[in-house]
Amino acid sequence: MARIVKKFGGTSVGDVDRIKNVAKIVKEEYDRGNEVVVVVSARSGVTNELVARAKAINSTPNDREMDMLLVAGEQETIALTAMALHAEGVGAVSMTGGQAGIKTDFAHTRARIVSMECEEIEKALQEKKVVIVAGFQGTNDDGLVTTLGRGGSDLSAIALAAGLKADICQVFTDVDGVYTADPRIVPLATKIPEISYEEMLELASLGTKVMQARSVEFANKYNVTFEVRSSFNNNPGTIVKQEVSSMEDVVVRGVALDKNQAKVMVGNIPDKPGSAAKLFDALASANVIVDMIVQNLGRNGVANMTFTVPRDDSERARVAVEKVLEELGGGEVTLFGDIVKLSVVGIGMRSHSGVASTLFSALAEAKSNIQIISTSEIKISVVIDEEGAADAVRIVHTAFGLDKAEA
Amino acid sequence: MARIVKKFGGTSVGDVDRIKNVAKIVKEEYDRGNEVVVVVSARSGVTNELVARAKAINSTPNDREMDMLLVAGEQETIALTAMALHAEGVGAVSMTGGQAGIKTDFAHTRARIVSMECEEIEKALQEKKVVIVAGFQGTNDDGLVTTLGRGGSDLSAIALAAGLKADICQVFTDVDGVYTADPRIVPLATKIPEISYEEMLELASLGTKVMQARSVEFANKYNVTFEVRSSFNNNPGTIVKQEVSSMEDVVVRGVALDKNQAKVMVGNIPDKPGSAAKLFDALASANVIVDMIVQNLGRNGVANMTFTVPRDDSERARVAVEKVLEELGGGEVTLFGDIVKLSVVGIGMRSHSGVASTLFSALAEAKSNIQIISTSEIKISVVIDEEGAADAVRIVHTAFGLDKAEA
Repeated sequence: MARIVKKFGGTSVGDVDRIKNVAKIVKEEYDRGNEVVVVVSARSGVTNELVARAKAINSTPNDREMDMLLVAGEQETIALTAMALHAEGVGAVSMTGGQAGIKTDFAHTRARIVSMECEEIEKALQEKKVVIVAGFQGTNDDGLVTTLGRGGSDLSAIALAAGLKADICQVFTDVDGVYTADPRIVPLATKIPEISYEEMLELASLGTKVMQARSVEFANKYNVTFEVRSSFNNNPGTIVKQEVSSMEDVVVRGVALDKNQAKVMVGNIPDKPGSAAKLFDALASANVIVDMIVQNLGRNGVANMTFTVPRDDSERARVAVEKVLEELGGGEVTLFGDIVKLSVVGIGMRSHSGVASTLFSALAEAKSNIQIISTSEIKISVVIDEEGAADAVRIVHTAFGLDKAEA
Repeated sequence: MARIVKKFGGTSVGDVDRIKNVAKIVKEEYDRGNEVVVVVSARSGVTNELVARAKAINSTPNDREMDMLLVAGEQETIALTAMALHAEGVGAVSMTGGQAGIKTDFAHTRARIVSMECEEIEKALQEKKVVIVAGFQGTNDDGLVTTLGRGGSDLSAIALAAGLKADICQVFTDVDGVYTADPRIVPLATKIPEISYEEMLELASLGTKVMQARSVEFANKYNVTFEVRSSFNNNPGTIVKQEVSSMEDVVVRGVALDKNQAKVMVGNIPDKPGSAAKLFDALASANVIVDMIVQNLGRNGVANMTFTVPRDDSERARVAVEKVLEELGGGEVTLFGDIVKLSVVGIGMRSHSGVASTLFSALAEAKSNIQIISTSEIKISVVIDEEGAADAVRIVHTAFGLDKAEA
């Protein structure tokens, strides 16, 4: 007998028929003799509707009340899902986040889970019931409902799997799993059967938006094995788990392309002590997240600095930088919105040499000029022109032997 | 400083603008320096939507899950109402029924309130906050959410007023208050400024559907003074309270007409011991509520029995009676769907004679034949033909001096 947590997102419970479909998937698992805990989100669209109604009433709604409002969405889905299982003849009981023992801190609308008290769920499982838990929510020590912020339902599922020592946590989405590259760009991309937390984290933060980094980090910390798979077919998905030695046989696990990038070049910065600190302080105050940074000192006591920022924040970055340059008494700033970040990721890189040279050769073949390079233990990222980037991804994908065998 | 509970039904919080209107009414009260606790229902229509979704998934949804589903409706309204008060600059905090300390028994979908633990509300009131409580819901000793059944939000408000020893409970509806007769039938009907619980109960159960009898009984038991008034204007409503001696000065408080009645005549019942018991046992088993009953023994050892039932149940009643008559070996049953029940209600009747004769004279003047008469301490009801009933109500209304002075 296995203990399994299954998480279904808003699309998977989007209407009455889809909820019935979820019940069928759960029943199959239950009929195999397994213990099943189900985590569901609100119906897709419901949360947005509630937020719109709140904003129409109060442009800056109170966080505590926002949480009170939003949890209603999941409460509806858990009850309906339990009813759907009853209709299938399966004993099931719904629980709010609080009833399920998800305890959080006091930060409304972006609470962090502080502990899991799973006695009620254990009791229900012993009574051979399927337990349906409202994702995205918990309660704090004042007994108030809290929500976990973006990606919160995934986090609920991972945390429950940790608290219940589940054998696996299955995250059902509208994609089949994690691919070696975006299949819309690289038709020969293949589904990755197994991947380590670190690789998943790098891929997630690099534009493969299957899951929020936060949930993957939580799974890593508590060693929760999870699977990303589709609720619309029965294909095996991608298993995300702790690194095992055989994973290193694959040097590069995938190629990610992040188009939401802009490059900011700051030239002729007066080279006074603390110039760089002032620059990045100003960017932080403007809430701009800086990614890759390159600095080089020029000959005449002036410095040049290049960095990347999310494309939507580039104008805000320019304004912040210009203000600092004025104070420093010199320098100029230029924005480049037409660049992308291409990354290759794989824990195998640690023990294999030649990854950089393979990447650079492939990019040369693709006629992509490398503008910035940044490396970590398991990742090499480069900034290249947006034009031709799709070709570059395909050529890099091929160069690392990731293409699927032609049928 | 007064302590006031205000209850707003589904129509009064039906959309964003109406919720803002509720916030304005509450702010006015708060600005007068009073403590205010607000009870709200779900937006009108929401509960029906949720029920429809549940039935589409499971034709016999589980009661516990039904409660989990339904409470989501009020949770949305309390949060939005709190936000609307914040927008008006009033400190406000929302509470679910459970958080507000409404403790119920274990009967899901029709729970009864067993105790009120109002510490959290008291604390918030001391912090000068308006407290917004979800009507219709509570929690049981297992910590599960329960709902109170039809009219539950009114009951929540009355129970909170009792628990908080509020000075008054104001029930805001879409009517102005309780009238001496239905103003659509009797244009000269006047709003009743004050009425006793007993009179309100008789009027409520007689077709003046302002409030469920259950809430009035609860108010009576715990001596909660409440006012029924409109959320769409600022007119004073009707105050419902314990009887005071001056109330007896008014002999008849109002005239009610119940059109949802049918008369069942059972003739030639073989006069065996237990015949009547069998008849009414069968009706009870068929879930038919019998109202007025008249029996008279015929000459030849046969009995005749006439009674009234809700019009929708009359066919069910006929089938049940026919079955019993078959067993008894005789008798026949006739249905009359074209009758109504007219009642005059007033605690003043206790100490004044002549009410019956005034009523009967008025009915004679209206050419209404009296088919059945039934009396209680504070009420006389008669069954008359539906045809001409509106005229009869107007003439009775005039006869008891209830008409408003012509302008």
